[in-house]
Amino acid sequence: MKQAKFSMETVGKVITCRAAIAWTINAPLCIEEVGVDPPKAGEVRIKVISSGICGSENHILDGTFPVPLPAILGHKGAGVVESIGEGVSSVKPGDKVLTLPIPQCRKCDSCLHAKGNCCLKEDAISPVGLMLDGTTRFTCRGRKVHNLFRTSTLTEYTVMHEISVAKIDDAAPLEKVCVLACGFPTGYGAAVNTAQVTPGSTCVVFGLGGVRSAVVLGCRAAGAARIIGIDINEGKLARAKALGVTDCLNPQNFTKPIQQVVVEMTGLGADFTFEAIGTIEMTVAALESCNLSYGVCVILGVSPVKSHLPLDPLKLVSGQTLKGCLLGEYKSRDQIPLLVDDYMKKKIDAESLITHNLPFVKINEGFELL
Amino acid sequence: MKQAKFSMETVGKVITCRAAIAWTINAPLCIEEVGVDPPKAGEVRIKVISSGICGSENHILDGTFPVPLPAILGHKGAGVVESIGEGVSSVKPGDKVLTLPIPQCRKCDSCLHAKGNCCLKEDAISPVGLMLDGTTRFTCRGRKVHNLFRTSTLTEYTVMHEISVAKIDDAAPLEKVCVLACGFPTGYGAAVNTAQVTPGSTCVVFGLGGVRSAVVLGCRAAGAARIIGIDINEGKLARAKALGVTDCLNPQNFTKPIQQVVVEMTGLGADFTFEAIGTIEMTVAALESCNLSYGVCVILGVSPVKSHLPLDPLKLVSGQTLKGCLLGEYKSRDQIPLLVDDYMKKKIDAESLITHNLPFVKINEGFELL
Repeated sequence: MKQAKFSMETVGKVITCRAAIAWTINAPLCIEEVGVDPPKAGEVRIKVISSGICGSENHILDGTFPVPLPAILGHKGAGVVESIGEGVSSVKPGDKVLTLPIPQCRKCDSCLHAKGNCCLKEDAISPVGLMLDGTTRFTCRGRKVHNLFRTSTLTEYTVMHEISVAKIDDAAPLEKVCVLACGFPTGYGAAVNTAQVTPGSTCVVFGLGGVRSAVVLGCRAAGAARIIGIDINEGKLARAKALGVTDCLNPQNFTKPIQQVVVEMTGLGADFTFEAIGTIEMTVAALESCNLSYGVCVILGVSPVKSHLPLDPLKLVSGQTLKGCLLGEYKSRDQIPLLVDDYMKKKIDAESLITHNLPFVKINEGFELL
Repeated sequence: MKQAKFSMETVGKVITCRAAIAWTINAPLCIEEVGVDPPKAGEVRIKVISSGICGSENHILDGTFPVPLPAILGHKGAGVVESIGEGVSSVKPGDKVLTLPIPQCRKCDSCLHAKGNCCLKEDAISPVGLMLDGTTRFTCRGRKVHNLFRTSTLTEYTVMHEISVAKIDDAAPLEKVCVLACGFPTGYGAAVNTAQVTPGSTCVVFGLGGVRSAVVLGCRAAGAARIIGIDINEGKLARAKALGVTDCLNPQNFTKPIQQVVVEMTGLGADFTFEAIGTIEMTVAALESCNLSYGVCVILGVSPVKSHLPLDPLKLVSGQTLKGCLLGEYKSRDQIPLLVDDYMKKKIDAESLITHNLPFVKINEGFELL
């Protein structure tokens, strides 16, 4: 297999490099040789240096969150701009960038709204796996291969729209900051932007993996007095305590529903609860764990498509709030680079989300660890 | 029938007066002679001067919101303190007061929380129809009669806990301010406290009756640029426009679902939507009428008990908020008297909620008008 080269020689040409292809669900990714087209107008070709993997990709591979296949997965990446298409002005070759699963076009209804961050150019909620012109830049074994969320970072090179690319600090360590492209802001922002966790409050975080660790960091940064972490994987509990979780609960250690345990522990339910696992069962548990009068339940997990949460509206009437968020409500191109700055100044501990560093060829091992 | 007297002679004695009794569902109220016990410790006996009636009482009478019967309904009243029980310090005989369907004990978890207003001493969500000691102060035809929400205002005299009684301005016109006990704050507060409507925003109000008129006033006060009102009763539309509704829609004039009409009218859905009718169909319409990226849907209607709102959590993840509120999130004893002050200073137009003034004996006519 050829090693991709990064030089002016590649500009305007198809780059042949390695990528992990998801040909079908319920099968390992295949490391293949792919062709990556040059960027069209408004597009950017990026040499990917690092990429995180995430629960939503697990949901894709197990078929609960369907996306068009074959595809190159991966949506949280850090890299260097190799070349730019016509009209691109916010980045130039050589710039360090993050790949954003939610773009910010700065022109649509959502981008122009003070609160909206779900840019109408996104392809993450009901993915079609193609660029805005309806085509793809990836070819493998003579077949066109879809992208994921218009990012695709499990490849040595990718092509993205400029509106999905965030230029970051030239000194940022690219092997680490990929977690700031999605996982960290999704969790941290859910606590500080969406829930607006208050000092002295009690928070409950369902799940203690990557994104949820960032929720814990956000709750701690916002001054939560008590952070209850819930996970069936006891292996995660020690690490969770180090991050700031004050009480760890394994639902399998209780005969009653975990929401009942939480309500009893907290008196009358928590101020803030966070569901980032993406199951109806845990969403119900998160909602029922929060106080009826003032509790706020934030959903950031991706539930299986067409799930139904059986919600009794009368229960909300006493004052509960149920809200969802994408990418922690950050306006992606404007605000994610500021998180990188905060990371560089050691104001946020994004590295604690990194559990393993693996070479690209061990991508399937990564999914097994996940 | 005897006319009730208000004098020191009644203190400590049972007062015999008229009250409207709901003996059973699906039947008119009966004006009956009742005995009203003197107040026990921490209780207040009130001569009721005026009372509003409300959709939640309709839901009681049609059986969709069950409460123990027989009962004296009515929960938004204005009156004068006739006598007080031992230990009562916040009101004295002769004080003008409002009756609060949600008390404020100032001691419970909810009262002590910055955001909570669903005092744990409330009896409005799953009513038992009895005072906190498990008894009632009303007798009729030899039978004990339940109260409603520990208020009961469709009677010439009622007994309430001090924590449910708000002392108001001595100059307040009691025949009018009863709307400030529940209907007005429920709607107005839903807009200004719960939704926190923003200047220039688009709001949609489902239903245009009493409480919903107060939502419209709240939206207008908060600076909404467009207020879409939805009702099948065309008779309400002219009045709604006078209040500030900019666009009136009658769902019966459209073949497509009203939420689709709203989304098309607003481009991509409204900033804020309010459901105060209390049906699942309208709650779904309210949620689907608000913008997927930043829309806030507030539920203030009382749905039939054990209703299920079939909610797809994936739809919330793009940034929607669904929240409920009781009494517009006002801390009742602290804040309702301030609304009376605002009314006296003509800062709020509470009178626009008053559609008809009827003598007590015409109470069934009132429910027909409702």
